[in-house]
Parts: sequence; C-alpha cells; structure tokens
Amino acid sequence: MFRSKVVVTLRKSILDPQGKAVQHGMHSLGYDGVKNVRIGKFVELEIDAANKEAAETITREVSEKLLANPVMEDFSFTTEEEAR
Amino acid sequence: MFRSKVVVTLRKSILDPQGKAVQHGMHSLGYDGVKNVRIGKFVELEIDAANKEAAETITREVSEKLLANPVMEDFSFTTEEEAR
Repeated sequence: MFRSKVVVTLRKSILDPQGKAVQHGMHSLGYDGVKNVRIGKFVELEIDAANKEAAETITREVSEKLLANPVMEDFSFTTEEEAR
Repeated sequence: MFRSKVVVTLRKSILDPQGKAVQHGMHSLGYDGVKNVRIGKFVELEIDAANKEAAETITREVSEKLLANPVMEDFSFTTEEEAR
C-alpha cells in the first residue's frame, strides 16, 4: 500500500479572499506578524499499486483530473510506501 | 521573513464524507486502486518574526486558536526562513 499526500494551492496570480479573511482574523487576535495567508487543500490517498511509480502515476492523474483546477491551481505531492 | 506550511487533518476516528465522495469519483474514473481518501486543509503563512522559534510559536498558536478545531482535527507544520 502506498500513501500519497497531495497539496493543491491557488496559483500566485489568483487572489485568495479566504486567506485574506483568515489573515484579518489573526490580526484581530493580535498576530500582526502574519503578513500573508494562502489557503489550499490537502488530500491524503491510500493507493493499492504494484510499485511506487504506478502509485505516483495514479496520484498525478487523479490530481490533474479531479483534485486540482488547472486554470487556477497548482498541485504537488509525495508518495511513500507503507507497511501493509 | 518566515514561511510556515500548516496541514490540518481530520482525526482518524472522525468520518470524512467529503473524502468518501472524492474516492467514489476516482472509482468512477477507473482508479479502483485508490482505497481511501481523506481531505484536509493546507495553509501557508508568511510571518515577520525575530527568529525561527518566534515564527514557530506564532504558527502553533494561530493553528490552535484559528485554523484547527481541536475536537475534530489535528495539525502539523513546518517553518522555514526565506530570503527577504
């Protein structure tokens, strides 16, 4: 079994109003040192595959097709083998 | 300037219907090897702080107070210094 951790983030050029709202919340709590906040998605996949390469291919394909919107978002991931 | 990357995940004992829905979507696309999906949040913070320890303290505190629901969620983070 393999475990992939996918992070989906908004592209830098895209405004992130949710992040701005969270940043304002932090300032309201007194954390003025927080200068920027960007919110993304984190997706953890357990994948049954023959080898790590196959698990990475599945991760890349589902990320492109389902998890990330290629117009507005980027994604990155890591894949590790797990003891069954 | 420091950059913290926070991952907020549902605790293992909490059901994740959103993850289940995504998993069904993957199966519909033919990716039957995906055996489990868990969805979380990813938050990237840019923090102006005197040193890395101070940036980590801010990250931990805002994660506990604002980003994660301690009843249902866990969080982890990394903090790195960035060139200004």
